[in-house]
Amino acid sequence: MTTHADDLTQRIGAPVELAGVAVRRPSKVREGIDPALITTDATALLKRGDIDIAIEVIGGIEPARTLITTAFEQGISVVSANKALLAQDGAALHAAAEAGGRDLYYEAAVAGAIPLVRPMRESLAGDKINRVMGIVNGTTNFILDKMDSTGAGYQEALDEATALGYAEADPTADVEGYDAAAKAAILAGIAFHTRVRLDDVYREGMTEVSAADFASAKRMGCTIKLLAILERAADGESVTARVHPAMIPLSHPLASVREAYNAVFVEAEAAGRLMFYGPGAGGAPTASAVLGDLVAVARNKLAEATGPGESAYTQLPVSPMGDVVTRYHISLDVADKPGVLAQVATTFAEHGVSIDTVRQQGKDGEASLVVVTHRAPDAALSGTVEALRKLDTVRGVASIMRVEGE
Amino acid sequence: MTTHADDLTQRIGAPVELAGVAVRRPSKVREGIDPALITTDATALLKRGDIDIAIEVIGGIEPARTLITTAFEQGISVVSANKALLAQDGAALHAAAEAGGRDLYYEAAVAGAIPLVRPMRESLAGDKINRVMGIVNGTTNFILDKMDSTGAGYQEALDEATALGYAEADPTADVEGYDAAAKAAILAGIAFHTRVRLDDVYREGMTEVSAADFASAKRMGCTIKLLAILERAADGESVTARVHPAMIPLSHPLASVREAYNAVFVEAEAAGRLMFYGPGAGGAPTASAVLGDLVAVARNKLAEATGPGESAYTQLPVSPMGDVVTRYHISLDVADKPGVLAQVATTFAEHGVSIDTVRQQGKDGEASLVVVTHRAPDAALSGTVEALRKLDTVRGVASIMRVEGE
Ligand SMILES: NC(=O)c1ccc[n+]([C@@H]2O[C@H](COP(=O)([O-])OP(=O)(O)OC[C@H]3O[C@@H](n4cnc5c(N)ncnc54)[C@H](OP(=O)(O)O)[C@@H]3O)[C@@H](O)[C@H]2O)c1
Ligand SMILES: NC(=O)c1ccc[n+]([C@@H]2O[C@H](COP(=O)([O-])OP(=O)(O)OC[C@H]3O[C@@H](n4cnc5c(N)ncnc54)[C@H](OP(=O)(O)O)[C@@H]3O)[C@@H](O)[C@H]2O)c1
Repeated sequence: MTTHADDLTQRIGAPVELAGVAVRRPSKVREGIDPALITTDATALLKRGDIDIAIEVIGGIEPARTLITTAFEQGISVVSANKALLAQDGAALHAAAEAGGRDLYYEAAVAGAIPLVRPMRESLAGDKINRVMGIVNGTTNFILDKMDSTGAGYQEALDEATALGYAEADPTADVEGYDAAAKAAILAGIAFHTRVRLDDVYREGMTEVSAADFASAKRMGCTIKLLAILERAADGESVTARVHPAMIPLSHPLASVREAYNAVFVEAEAAGRLMFYGPGAGGAPTASAVLGDLVAVARNKLAEATGPGESAYTQLPVSPMGDVVTRYHISLDVADKPGVLAQVATTFAEHGVSIDTVRQQGKDGEASLVVVTHRAPDAALSGTVEALRKLDTVRGVASIMRVEGE
Repeated sequence: MTTHADDLTQRIGAPVELAGVAVRRPSKVREGIDPALITTDATALLKRGDIDIAIEVIGGIEPARTLITTAFEQGISVVSANKALLAQDGAALHAAAEAGGRDLYYEAAVAGAIPLVRPMRESLAGDKINRVMGIVNGTTNFILDKMDSTGAGYQEALDEATALGYAEADPTADVEGYDAAAKAAILAGIAFHTRVRLDDVYREGMTEVSAADFASAKRMGCTIKLLAILERAADGESVTARVHPAMIPLSHPLASVREAYNAVFVEAEAAGRLMFYGPGAGGAPTASAVLGDLVAVARNKLAEATGPGESAYTQLPVSPMGDVVTRYHISLDVADKPGVLAQVATTFAEHGVSIDTVRQQGKDGEASLVVVTHRAPDAALSGTVEALRKLDTVRGVASIMRVEGE
C-alpha cells in the first residue's frame, strides 16, 4: 500500500508539499497538521515566493476575494470552494487568473463531491447544453424529504435537520435559496458559455412550503423539491436561471433523491439526458473535489499550461422570471356558490393561461379549488394569480407552486 | 446564434478543420460531408503531414490498432471510441502515445455520452476509488428491463430489442457480456491505477436468465441486471473485475435504470457514493463524447501539453473470481421427504457458507428449495453448488444467481 501523499505524487508526476495553512484561530488544535505550518497571515504566506497553488476554503466575499487576487498577482494558481464569491465575482476572478496565466478551479463550489463543473466544461465541450435541473442544496433536500416522508411541517423538519447537523444555526443561506442560487449562477455560466451573476438568478426559498402542499403534491403523484433550473430559451437567444420549490412527478429521477444528497440533470443536444448524483456537501466529499482540482492544477503547472478558463463568448442575456415557461399548481379558498368556477376559469382565459385540471371540494359554504395549468409564461401565470386575488368569490390563495419535470 | 464549428473554435481557442474522412465504402452517400474529403486510405491520410488529431471510430482490433500506432508515430493525437481495442491493448497504446508525446482520449469507449472516464481519472484523482458497479451495456439492459416489465422470456425480449434496433443482428458481444467486460477492464484500470486487461475480467453473459429467475427476484424484492463490478479487496492488496447478471434490490438506484440507459456507481473513500447516468450508446451521444475529447485534445495541442496518460503505478494484481466475496440465490429441485433440508444445510455449513434465508415449496413428491446465502467467497459458493449437485436428494439446480447491491 502506498500512502496518500505518495498517491498524489504518482498522479501528479511530482511531489506536492503543504507549505502553510492560514487560519483565523491559531491556537485551535488541528490533528495531523504540523503546528509550525499554521499562520494567521494568509497574505504573507501567499507572498513568501515559493508557493505554486493556493486552496481557498475560507468562504464569504472578503478577505477571500482579495487573497485570491493576491495569489494570481503572485503567479499562484487557485483552487476554491467558494460559491458565493464565484457567483458574485466570477468574471473578475477569471480575468485575474488569465492575466496572471494561472488556473482557477472550483469543482467543490457546486454540488460538493459530484463531478459537475469538469464534466460540464470539459466532457460536454463539444455539445450544446439546453437545460440543467437539479437539487444542489443538501440541507433543504433533507428538510423537504423529512416533510414528505413523515408529514412534518417545515419548522419541525428544520429542527430535526439542525439537531442532526444538516442545517446550520442560521439556516437562511440554505432555506432562502441563496446557496442554491449561487450554484445556479455558476452552472448557468458554464452551461451556456455566458456570464450569469447571482443577481440574475430568480430566487424563492422553501420556508413557505407546508404539509398541506405535500398533501396536494401527493394527490397529483408528485413530491416537492427545491430546484435550480437553467434553460436556454426556445429561440436560443437568451437563457433563464431560477431557484424555487416545485412539484415534480414521483416517476422523475430527482423525486427519489433522499436526505442530503444532491443530483443534477443535464440535457444536451447530442448527449441527451445525463444525471450526476452524490453527496453535495460535507468535509470529506468537499475535500475530494478540492484534491481532484489540486491534482489537475499541479499537472497543468508541470506542463506549463493552464486548464480551460472562463468561456463566456455567447454573451447570451439572462431573461427575467416572467419569461420562463412553466406550470402552476394553485389552491384557492372560494365561496361555495354556483358560478365560481366559471369566474375563475374566465380569469385564467383572460390571461392566456390554459387549465390542465381543476379539483373542486366544498363543505359548509366554504370550498376550495385546486387548479393545475398547462405551460405558460410565468408573467401570465402570476398575472392570473393577481387577478384571482381580486375576485369577490375568491377568499384567498392558499398556495401557489410551480410544477416541473415533465 | 453561432454555428457549431464557431462554437468549437471558441471553446478550443483556434479553428478546427476536418482534413479527411477514411471509410471502407467510398461510394456511400454521406450527408453533410464534402466527397473530396473521403478516402479509403487511412494510412495515407495520417501520413499527409498536416494532421494534428485523428478520431478512430472503426472499431475492432485491426486495422484500428495499426492506424492508431501510425498516428502516434506521425505526432498525431488520437480520440478513440474503441473499447475492444483499449481493453486488449490499452497499455501498449498508452505507451505509444507517451513515446510520441501525444494524447490518447477515449471517453466514448465507456458508457457512451456519460462522462465517466474524465471524472474518474481527473475529478477523482485526489481520492481513492474502492468500488465501481454499473450497467454499462444498453442492449442487455433493454432486454432485461423488458423481461422484468412484461414477464417475457429471454428470446422474446431479444427479438423485440432486435426489431427496435437495440440489438445487432449478431448480439453475441452484448448478451455474452464481452462488450461490458471490455468496459469493465478499462474502468478498473482507471479506478485502481493498475493494468486490467479483458482476460482479467470474469465474464458471464445473460442468455440463461429466465422468466422464472425474474419471478424469484420479484419474491425477494429484487430485479435482475447485467452488472460490471470492480472492487478493491478488503486488504487493499488486489482488485477484482467481473461482469455477470445479478439480483439487486428494487430500492437500489441501479434497479430503476430502464430501457437502454446506462448508469454507473462509483464509491470513493472521501467522495462517498456517486452515480453517473445517461444514454450509453447511439450515434449522437457517442459523438458528444468524441467531440468533448476532441476539444480537450485540441486545447492540449495549443498549450503544447498533453492530458493525463495511463496511471498504473499501483500495479495491483487482479484476483480470480473465486476470491470475490458475494451472495448466491440458489433454486434447487429436491425430493419431498424429511431430512432434505438438513442435508442441504449441512452441505452449506461444510463449505463455510452461512445461509440467510430458505424457502421450501412442495407438491406431489417434488419440492423446491430456494436458498439465499450470506456473503462468502465465490469459490466457497460454487464449491457448495458442486456438492449440492452430488446429493441424492437434489434432483437438479434450477438456477444460481449472485445477489448484489446491499
Ligand atoms: N462545508 C461544506 O460542506 C462545503 C461544501 C462545499 C463548499 N464549501 C465552501 O467551502 C468554504 C468553507 O466552508 P466551511 O464550511 O469549511 O467553513 P468553515 O468551517 O467556517 O471554515 C472556514 C475556514 O477558513 C478559516 N478562515 C476564516 N477566515 C479566515 C481568514 N481571514 N484568514 C485565514 N483563515 C480564515 C477558518 O479558520 P479557523 O479554523 O481558525 O476558524 C476555517 O478553517 C465556503 O466557501 C463554503 O461555501 C463548503
Ligand atoms: N455505435 C455506438 O453506439 C457506439 C457507442 C460507443 C462506442 N462505439 C464504438 O465506436 C466504434 C464504431 O462503432 P459503430 O457502431 O459506429 O461501427 P460502424 O457503424 O461499423 O462504423 C464503422 C466506421 O468505420 C469505417 N471503417 C471500417 N473499416 C475501415 C477501414 N479499414 N478503413 C477506414 N474506415 C473503416 C466504416 O466505413 P463505412 O461507412 O464505409 O462502412 C464506418 O464508417 C466501435 O469501436 C464501437 O465500439 C460505438
